[in-house]
Amino acid sequence: MSYAKMSKLFVRTLRQDPADAEVPSHRWLVRAGYIRRAAPGVYTWLPLGLRVLARVEAIIREEMEAIGAQEVHFPALLPREPYEQTNRWTEYGPNLFRLKDRKGQDMLLGPTHEEMFTLLVKDLYSSYKDLPVILYQIQTKYRDEARPRAGVLRGREFIMKDSYSFDIDDEGLEVNYVKHRQAYQRIMDRLGLDYVIVKAMSGAMGGSRSEEFLALSDNGEDTFVRSPGGYAANVEAVSVGAVAPGDPTSFPPARTVSTPGAGTIATLVEAVNQSAPRTDRAWEASDTLKNVVFMRVAADGKRSPLIIGLPGDRDVDEKRLEAALSPDQAEPFTDEDFVSFPDLVKGYIGPVSFSGEPTALLGADRPAGVTYLTDPRVVTGTSWVSGANVVDTHVVNLVMGRDFTSDGVIDVAEIRPGDPAPDGSGPLSLARGVEMGHIFQLGRKYAEALGLKVLDAQGKLVTVTMGSYGIGVTRAVAMVAEATCDEKGLAWPRNLAPYDVIIVIAGKDPAMVDAADRLATDLELEGLEVVVDDRAVSPGVKFADAEIIGFPTSVIVGRGLKDGVVEVRDRLSGESSSVPLAEAVGAVLRLGQSDPVEDLA
Amino acid sequence: MSYAKMSKLFVRTLRQDPADAEVPSHRWLVRAGYIRRAAPGVYTWLPLGLRVLARVEAIIREEMEAIGAQEVHFPALLPREPYEQTNRWTEYGPNLFRLKDRKGQDMLLGPTHEEMFTLLVKDLYSSYKDLPVILYQIQTKYRDEARPRAGVLRGREFIMKDSYSFDIDDEGLEVNYVKHRQAYQRIMDRLGLDYVIVKAMSGAMGGSRSEEFLALSDNGEDTFVRSPGGYAANVEAVSVGAVAPGDPTSFPPARTVSTPGAGTIATLVEAVNQSAPRTDRAWEASDTLKNVVFMRVAADGKRSPLIIGLPGDRDVDEKRLEAALSPDQAEPFTDEDFVSFPDLVKGYIGPVSFSGEPTALLGADRPAGVTYLTDPRVVTGTSWVSGANVVDTHVVNLVMGRDFTSDGVIDVAEIRPGDPAPDGSGPLSLARGVEMGHIFQLGRKYAEALGLKVLDAQGKLVTVTMGSYGIGVTRAVAMVAEATCDEKGLAWPRNLAPYDVIIVIAGKDPAMVDAADRLATDLELEGLEVVVDDRAVSPGVKFADAEIIGFPTSVIVGRGLKDGVVEVRDRLSGESSSVPLAEAVGAVLRLGQSDPVEDLA
Repeated sequence: MSYAKMSKLFVRTLRQDPADAEVPSHRWLVRAGYIRRAAPGVYTWLPLGLRVLARVEAIIREEMEAIGAQEVHFPALLPREPYEQTNRWTEYGPNLFRLKDRKGQDMLLGPTHEEMFTLLVKDLYSSYKDLPVILYQIQTKYRDEARPRAGVLRGREFIMKDSYSFDIDDEGLEVNYVKHRQAYQRIMDRLGLDYVIVKAMSGAMGGSRSEEFLALSDNGEDTFVRSPGGYAANVEAVSVGAVAPGDPTSFPPARTVSTPGAGTIATLVEAVNQSAPRTDRAWEASDTLKNVVFMRVAADGKRSPLIIGLPGDRDVDEKRLEAALSPDQAEPFTDEDFVSFPDLVKGYIGPVSFSGEPTALLGADRPAGVTYLTDPRVVTGTSWVSGANVVDTHVVNLVMGRDFTSDGVIDVAEIRPGDPAPDGSGPLSLARGVEMGHIFQLGRKYAEALGLKVLDAQGKLVTVTMGSYGIGVTRAVAMVAEATCDEKGLAWPRNLAPYDVIIVIAGKDPAMVDAADRLATDLELEGLEVVVDDRAVSPGVKFADAEIIGFPTSVIVGRGLKDGVVEVRDRLSGESSSVPLAEAVGAVLRLGQSDPVEDLA
Repeated sequence: MSYAKMSKLFVRTLRQDPADAEVPSHRWLVRAGYIRRAAPGVYTWLPLGLRVLARVEAIIREEMEAIGAQEVHFPALLPREPYEQTNRWTEYGPNLFRLKDRKGQDMLLGPTHEEMFTLLVKDLYSSYKDLPVILYQIQTKYRDEARPRAGVLRGREFIMKDSYSFDIDDEGLEVNYVKHRQAYQRIMDRLGLDYVIVKAMSGAMGGSRSEEFLALSDNGEDTFVRSPGGYAANVEAVSVGAVAPGDPTSFPPARTVSTPGAGTIATLVEAVNQSAPRTDRAWEASDTLKNVVFMRVAADGKRSPLIIGLPGDRDVDEKRLEAALSPDQAEPFTDEDFVSFPDLVKGYIGPVSFSGEPTALLGADRPAGVTYLTDPRVVTGTSWVSGANVVDTHVVNLVMGRDFTSDGVIDVAEIRPGDPAPDGSGPLSLARGVEMGHIFQLGRKYAEALGLKVLDAQGKLVTVTMGSYGIGVTRAVAMVAEATCDEKGLAWPRNLAPYDVIIVIAGKDPAMVDAADRLATDLELEGLEVVVDDRAVSPGVKFADAEIIGFPTSVIVGRGLKDGVVEVRDRLSGESSSVPLAEAVGAVLRLGQSDPVEDLA
């Protein structure tokens, strides 16, 4: 291999930010010529980007092989039937790319391959002696995201490493789960990412235990919580601790209060403090029962109102709601919907109707088709101020278990800093991250649906237990860029950079070209990958491009050459030093050795 | 890396041929556990298959880099617009997988990426100084084949290396075309395939010059011709040499002949020899003008009859017809179609109607919507026996240019062994092959449609000229398997095998396990990839599996071990020899060195 030349390299840096760039990694990967958008959420990888991607893939492959995983490769174009058998054909809803072939057969573009791996193992294996086995692929996935964003950070076509473990029993699954957890830790370390492992929801995947690897990032879409005592969970997966029920008979009777215009929690608190003041203290938002109504949309399209009752000082957290309802979805309840359900009085919804005699509007005798779920804090023996289902009217002293009940518990209120960790390990703090990996103990869901059984040692057919483990490969490139870039451009860690060194010819003296050529050749002999910037542009343009592209090391062959020196610059630290030409190779190699990420790898 | 163990390897060999296997490579790749069908024409690659695929990809990548091509990676999921601009959205017909995203936008799964590469170069480049450039990708393609067949030999999801050259002028295009031609020759040589380069049709791709690389195979779908003088062409691309026109006035007048029941060429020849015999010699099939009617279906769905007149001793070649009409298609003319066009009398179609006064039924005054095209041999001054468009009636002395004309020439008659090569280089012979590569001089078709222009040295905007070059990667794996397998299974050349050596433990003596372990470790230290067959099955099963899977070298550690010897077997030659254990590594390495393909690589 000989070194590359900037004059030939298929790369052009852009002076302007792309119009749709929301986050730094997207901006710089486009501006530095690593990726280009082909369609919304669908990207082309240019030569520089592809080289980084290959390095990330190599790390992941090494760590998967190290835990004994064997690589296979599934198609992206898949038949409907297996996904029908697990119901995911329907449950994936609009996130699934569906198509028909020329014969009218339903097909899909694989969003993840649990079904196919299950069937493959069923095809090849039949005995407990064949297990355990871990299979993986690094493969292109498709999800028709509602809001593709941030370049390759959340795309509709993306590369994922997905692996699957197959075991005869739960102990085996636990072993393979832990193997993956450790492999993912090594991968995240080698990528140089600052990350946290949090308890997660399983979502559409099903299964019991799951954890996410979140890379810390203020631009992340995921919010997670941590406690001083070591609790860590995606905000979607936090369970509010159970509240002990009280005695529902110990409260004064419920009564209506006139609350003209008090259609919000703030105005309600003000109104009841005026017209029905408490003697011990003022009413607070946390004394009110907020009833938020959504239209729940099942995967098969069925729509029905869902009312969520929660303390009035908290809002429903959209992501927690989405996770709790999955695969169903919640849509806003529109004015037309209110017309269709005249029992629900906008702004004054409550669990009991006081329009005439008190009657249970919600709860057991609710209007047909309406579901009423309550926050875990709304337990028997708690007293609330809530809507009376009559305009300008509320009820006080409305007691759960005495005056109303609900159809069940839903734990979707926002989590706030300072809330107690469910395990008693102290107050929670919140931060944001990007989901880089997700490991699941699937259990027997897929094996049961698709009939993956093997003979055990007693000759009895038993259902196999599975794990599934994903890590975003294209997303990892974006996330490393996001974590390392600065105001000048990309700044790759040495083990992931598209090239190790750029040699900038900063002048027109032919001696500079000769020196650059010799230096490049010597560096390549040392195993480094080198680009020489031989373009007929000013040194300033070359320096700026070297910084935008983010080569870890620049060697500038310029005016100093007549005194026998070149300049060696480190992109990450910004440090620069003049070294004699004859010592340049050694200086570059020493920079590489001092890199902590390189050492780790 | 430590060696692999058969007891852990995700592979199971099958004793039975898969029901749908039509060709040996398909049969053995499935039986030996390299691939599995996921849907018609859509395959999963198991660990062994994926390793061979990776070796093939590495060869292709090396040869592409050697001609200065730069690797990029496009999505498979593409927007409709660019394919609309070149009309391929329509022209691809049912071969294109089309789908809509959640917003109802039309998208497609890329069958080939001319449009996207053109737009990418337009995005990044603007000057003649930027050119030439060659870009390539190794990427998954989708074509909804009507008849996917032969496993991964013709799939609907497959991997292709596609590259594209961009030049300012035709001379540059020629240089890049020749570079690719040579690179493809090296790739075919390194794959060990017996191949021929033939003149080809450009098909849906458009453009001027193109050649195919066909691997010789009796099971191949492509037929090609060769002459002793060096002419070589896909049968679709053969042009029959022009025949000199004669004097149309030198023939006796046309007259009808009663030919009851003579609805075929054979019965017609018999009938006219009886009722209207020639004086000089008997009528022959080649004296008759056969008129074959098809329903031509345009890409937009329009249907119209197409009649092809050709010498009665030849049939229409379906693949030549398909290529000549592309992107239109020809369907059989049904009995219902004959009802709709009563002027066409089945079995008695001819270019002139003799039902009352002779009138030109076909040619200039043909029925509305009917096209009449003739074979190049049907030139002015040739005389024919043909149908009279009246039941049981034919015409003799029907002279082209005097009694009838056609709408044009169509060169789709079958080519027969012994036909003269169009360039006068001797008689043609026919053989079959599989298309492994195709190189095209596209010219400016795509650049014009998509506005790819750059400034030339004079500051004038000029349209770029392009080449496109494809090679089937998954197909190459199948074709190498096809060319090398035998009655016992696969038999990989050493440079493509999934592993270099299998060490078979042929017995239960723990000393055999120890010896196998030491030998495997020593061979891996020499850079070879080794599997040890440590399974608790009989030596016979192990030997059979080693042969089916096709490891180039087997080392059998069995009874001979107590005398200090092992057996070294070569899969390709079938030769076997006993060697002292201490010399086994050397013996294995020598086998590798003697392999001609390995030397080449």
